[in-house]
Amino acid sequence: MKSEGSEFASAISDNTSPALIASVPDAGIAQGQRASLDARMMRRMLEAMGQPPFRVSLWNGEEISFCDTPSQPRVLIRDRATLLLLLVDPAFRFGDAYAAGDIEVEGSLTQFIEAVYRAEAKMRSLGFIDHHRFSLLSRLRRNTLTRSRDNVQHHYDLGNAFYELWLDRRMLYTCAYFPTPDAGLEQAQVAKMDLVCRKLRLHPGETVVEAGCGWGAMARHMARHYGVKVRAFNISREQIEYARQRACAEGLDSRVEYVEDDYRNIDGRYDAFVSIGMLEHVGRDHYGELGNVIRRCLPEHGRGLIHTIGRNKPAPMQPWIERRIFPGAYPPTLREMMEVFEPQGFSVLDVENLRLHYARTLEHWLARFEQASERIRQMFDERFVRMWRLYLAGSAAAFNTGDMQLFQILFACPDNNDVPLTRDHLHVGA
Amino acid sequence: MKSEGSEFASAISDNTSPALIASVPDAGIAQGQRASLDARMMRRMLEAMGQPPFRVSLWNGEEISFCDTPSQPRVLIRDRATLLLLLVDPAFRFGDAYAAGDIEVEGSLTQFIEAVYRAEAKMRSLGFIDHHRFSLLSRLRRNTLTRSRDNVQHHYDLGNAFYELWLDRRMLYTCAYFPTPDAGLEQAQVAKMDLVCRKLRLHPGETVVEAGCGWGAMARHMARHYGVKVRAFNISREQIEYARQRACAEGLDSRVEYVEDDYRNIDGRYDAFVSIGMLEHVGRDHYGELGNVIRRCLPEHGRGLIHTIGRNKPAPMQPWIERRIFPGAYPPTLREMMEVFEPQGFSVLDVENLRLHYARTLEHWLARFEQASERIRQMFDERFVRMWRLYLAGSAAAFNTGDMQLFQILFACPDNNDVPLTRDHLHVGA
Repeated sequence: MKSEGSEFASAISDNTSPALIASVPDAGIAQGQRASLDARMMRRMLEAMGQPPFRVSLWNGEEISFCDTPSQPRVLIRDRATLLLLLVDPAFRFGDAYAAGDIEVEGSLTQFIEAVYRAEAKMRSLGFIDHHRFSLLSRLRRNTLTRSRDNVQHHYDLGNAFYELWLDRRMLYTCAYFPTPDAGLEQAQVAKMDLVCRKLRLHPGETVVEAGCGWGAMARHMARHYGVKVRAFNISREQIEYARQRACAEGLDSRVEYVEDDYRNIDGRYDAFVSIGMLEHVGRDHYGELGNVIRRCLPEHGRGLIHTIGRNKPAPMQPWIERRIFPGAYPPTLREMMEVFEPQGFSVLDVENLRLHYARTLEHWLARFEQASERIRQMFDERFVRMWRLYLAGSAAAFNTGDMQLFQILFACPDNNDVPLTRDHLHVGA
Repeated sequence: MKSEGSEFASAISDNTSPALIASVPDAGIAQGQRASLDARMMRRMLEAMGQPPFRVSLWNGEEISFCDTPSQPRVLIRDRATLLLLLVDPAFRFGDAYAAGDIEVEGSLTQFIEAVYRAEAKMRSLGFIDHHRFSLLSRLRRNTLTRSRDNVQHHYDLGNAFYELWLDRRMLYTCAYFPTPDAGLEQAQVAKMDLVCRKLRLHPGETVVEAGCGWGAMARHMARHYGVKVRAFNISREQIEYARQRACAEGLDSRVEYVEDDYRNIDGRYDAFVSIGMLEHVGRDHYGELGNVIRRCLPEHGRGLIHTIGRNKPAPMQPWIERRIFPGAYPPTLREMMEVFEPQGFSVLDVENLRLHYARTLEHWLARFEQASERIRQMFDERFVRMWRLYLAGSAAAFNTGDMQLFQILFACPDNNDVPLTRDHLHVGA
């Protein structure tokens, strides 16, 4: 059984194991021969990957390619040490090498990663890649209250000023909804909030609890446009402070309460539960607990919506993303998500897959990020810029290739017959 | 641990076990005292059920009730033997006793069963009922090719003339879709077929394979209105013969091929897969096999839809229904259904819960069945009429109370990006 990280390595035949490759520089082979071996190894790797549509250039100018379209991305590996690390653990090492500038990608970074994901999917379907080992490792990291806070702060407390540079002006850091292909990001984020509110059929005077509220835009939107009172939970201090300031400035502070606390500590009863972009941080071992919390806070007529990144088949988070970007994150399959709903007997009313909307959202974020990259470089450094570029481009590629999914799941309490007969109320013209 | 069948029995205190009750007639108690004990037992049973809104009359005229509304259903138990059987195994014995006329229900049969389902749900949530034992038993009955055929013939080969008396004129024996609350059954069955076709986005010239095609209406509808060629599989000989005759009469026999064979023997490649009302007969142990069949017959751009009865929580089919009406049937939860899709990496695009549509469909069927009951009595006998009345009313109650769900699951092959961005194309005005 091979780990996810070893797909490139597994492309090398048994005669050229990583240990053998690592010993090559010491083996006294002349410069020209060595270069040729490097190129041959890279060529075999690309062959094993099904001859993907990108070119690879080595430090010495050698180019390995199975395609002759000049527009295709070109990956430049700057030295042999980087190549060898890639051969041993590509899924993790590529990210660090790219962030350090030891690898450069000319042309579309997203397009290159899409080609890698498609090759991986093919190799996975042929049995070359096995996720079980990583899967087990990720299960061992339980998201306790403290660890959850650390994980969230690692990512979300990078500073509001940073996120303001490239998110929409309402600061939504989750998949938008594009009612038409040419809708802009600002419009699409508002459309996403309205889609969720229509699904939940919020009525004026009702109460809503939100788990994982980010910078609080959804809570303010529900209060302002749907006349509900909202209690919104989040464990990121910076986000909560920002959310409170905005609510005050917008005169919504009497109808929106932001609580700096974990979803497990939600108390009270509400007409509706909503959570956008939190389940992927909850961790598989806590789905039953989340289901308990939701059941506890909903009355008989209650309903809820969970919006989350997911998968078609169980697989760990891409290891570099999980280590460097989103510690503790795990995108569940629909089957796994049902561990939230099934033990409580919740009735799942509607599931919508918005995968292509997240690809589009990420492309918008990446474009805005690039426009602000000089400012971001000044705030952090070059490595940070490259790391985040890779994360945004890689995520766009993951959703574009179907490696990742985005599910919105609408549910109701078991015996609630006050559910709409059709979806007509969801239609924009409705 | 108690079986589902013992919920009434479990309502009796430990001091009045079924064995003790059974011994009562032999205990030499005088007539008046015996009657009083029967009434007291019934009263305790209703108390344990949470004082449900129906009245019970015993053979001697005694009435037990916690409600004073005369419009509420009244259950008449005609003799002590029936009462005792009910106390031991109500979930199974009620059906046989009702069919035999040993129990009568005055007022709405559906309303009475809804009250029972609601009481059961409450008792289940309090831990009085446990489904594990039945669940295990039903797993032991594997749906082999031969058994599947026997099961299907038991129900579907009762004679086309019988079903023609109370189904819509196109002979659809699955949940309809009511675009408005006042739509009729004929309109709602056409609307269901169109909803499925819109979800599948069928284009003229494409090919479709249908697993479990009933009397073939869906296949003919797709061919006539969406310009596709259809191969439709079914193991009920009577249904297939009927379907072929209709296709010939309607000039569709060059575009619809009906195959008398099991879904496991589907061969060939098709643009789309559809299955309406078959998964509940497939059996849990065969979901992986079904997933394999679907994957094998779909190309990269392929998509499919499964329409099936389901549950919020795992539970066996109601035991009387499973024994007398639908042998081998099992309504899965969404989590269990994912065993069809997940191993193949299918991308679930859309799940819609049409539970209330099935309740409405069953109410239409029941009304038509009652109108034709004299004819049906002549074709079969009184017991058959009562059995089917109970089945139709009980199913309406199951969907109305949320005991059963109806899921339509739309899915696509893993890497298929030719999926619509929004659901606008599903809207009736689209």
